[in-house]
Amino acid sequence: MHEFELIKKYFSNLSSYNKSSLDLNDDVFFDKSKKLVISIDTYIEGVHFIDFRYPGLVIKKILRSSISDLICKGVYPKYYFISASGNKKSFSKNNLKKISSSLNQEQKKYSIYLSGGDTVFSKKLSFTITTIGFSNKIISRNRAKVNDDIYVTGNLGDSFIGLKILKKKLNLSKILNNYFQKKYFCPEIYTNISKKLLSLANTSIDISDGLIADLEKLINKQKLSYILYFKDIPVSKNLKKLINLKKIKKQTCISRGDDYQILFTASRSKSRIIAQSFKDLGIKVSKIGKICPVSQKSQIIDEKNKNITLKNKGYFHSF
Amino acid sequence: MHEFELIKKYFSNLSSYNKSSLDLNDDVFFDKSKKLVISIDTYIEGVHFIDFRYPGLVIKKILRSSISDLICKGVYPKYYFISASGNKKSFSKNNLKKISSSLNQEQKKYSIYLSGGDTVFSKKLSFTITTIGFSNKIISRNRAKVNDDIYVTGNLGDSFIGLKILKKKLNLSKILNNYFQKKYFCPEIYTNISKKLLSLANTSIDISDGLIADLEKLINKQKLSYILYFKDIPVSKNLKKLINLKKIKKQTCISRGDDYQILFTASRSKSRIIAQSFKDLGIKVSKIGKICPVSQKSQIIDEKNKNITLKNKGYFHSF
Repeated sequence: MHEFELIKKYFSNLSSYNKSSLDLNDDVFFDKSKKLVISIDTYIEGVHFIDFRYPGLVIKKILRSSISDLICKGVYPKYYFISASGNKKSFSKNNLKKISSSLNQEQKKYSIYLSGGDTVFSKKLSFTITTIGFSNKIISRNRAKVNDDIYVTGNLGDSFIGLKILKKKLNLSKILNNYFQKKYFCPEIYTNISKKLLSLANTSIDISDGLIADLEKLINKQKLSYILYFKDIPVSKNLKKLINLKKIKKQTCISRGDDYQILFTASRSKSRIIAQSFKDLGIKVSKIGKICPVSQKSQIIDEKNKNITLKNKGYFHSF
Repeated sequence: MHEFELIKKYFSNLSSYNKSSLDLNDDVFFDKSKKLVISIDTYIEGVHFIDFRYPGLVIKKILRSSISDLICKGVYPKYYFISASGNKKSFSKNNLKKISSSLNQEQKKYSIYLSGGDTVFSKKLSFTITTIGFSNKIISRNRAKVNDDIYVTGNLGDSFIGLKILKKKLNLSKILNNYFQKKYFCPEIYTNISKKLLSLANTSIDISDGLIADLEKLINKQKLSYILYFKDIPVSKNLKKLINLKKIKKQTCISRGDDYQILFTASRSKSRIIAQSFKDLGIKVSKIGKICPVSQKSQIIDEKNKNITLKNKGYFHSF
């Protein structure tokens, strides 16, 4: 069963008395009166990260992915909690040193503080990370309007190539291998745009499961559709090289997830101020499509207005 | 490595800038300026619960155990979050119905609200539960004073007998089997004493790992010792029956954990008001010992002042 249907069918009724849960239909919890914003995510070895060969990098990846949930909502994280389950091997002295040193670096980079958690013994390695921030308001899901522009920060697909390299399904030059693997482990989180987004975006999400998967989640309760312009979906210079060399097709890698870019929609009237705001902060942003009435079919089109079908639209958790 | 040493060695430095973490040495996080109290616990199949034969009961047990963390600190829980990892079998329709129905009952019983979480696929079943409450103050660990009385609510050991029955290591009459198994799955949480405790107790903890294990945790940063009066450690009428029938020894079952009773210390001057307050609310409370200067050795003594040694002092998580 699809994760959404599952939540809806068996758990939505339990949260219906409680507005702050946002109907369990957002990535965060928001108690407006307490100004409290919370995000909780579980990461399992073999599902959310391949293995624990690089504990320091895995910890960076999952912590950034957790922070990203708040940042894309216009909220700056303050505290984080880690519940770690694992065995003696996963939590050897050497690994713990690496984890601790990575957390220390991330704390300094993002001004966040380890605030608690739990450590339990388990054969299977997993982490649950809770991040907490305080804010008067957040950017919610399902607030897109017809004719809104659709934007995405940074580039898509690099992380997917990094994963392919780590899985030994692709091998490039040493420099390119390093570049893409770094993009997989250390997504850039644009903390400095976060508060500004509150006044620019109508609705937002971070791309963890894939461009299309997350775009559909973003408007899942709205009667809307979208059009995306294939050529405007941003990829890095290095990924462009691979595409030009026919090592991979663009349509294969733009909706595979783990990008942790911000996907948002905004009124067309905000177009100029968005371009300027992102330029001022040195953050790449691309207008990649627009929101349409539900009477139209959602589609991705190329320069000749031809429909492009993606084989992979991203990751949908199912049971 | 012992869970405490592990946390201390590798993670305490990461939380040192952050007073709210209570040095990672309490079961809760407390941000005084935001009045925010948080508890996070992870429960693993085979470690924290035997198996998932009774999903509705397992969910009750782990949710109550999470609530208990806040209640024993004088804080009433308001929100809870569940991150569930499991496979198709664990989260079959039938099991989800049972989980949902149990959560519904618990929400009504404790006036708490499901507020979010995560559902992910994993071969191994585990849950991380986050509970949140709001309070101006909490009862901290490590605030005992020399000559404080040591108190415990309810009875100890019933849950351990329930576990033995579930593991088929003990078989009693149907009525007794049911009684003890219920004590294992559905610990009673004394929500109505919680706020009152703030003015009565100097320091407190809930007993999850075992009377002695948790008493030692309660004062782990203080230079103190304790004396416990064996005969005053409370057990139920049903457990007394088993002890009288020599089916089990009292010393075997009073410090095995999973009791979720409140263990606290209080000034001797509060003795009368404590007895009266608990009586008014219909909650059993027993004075079981006192806090001593570190020059004395911690001990449990019988009526003839003879030392009693417990083989099992409770559960210490180690890696």
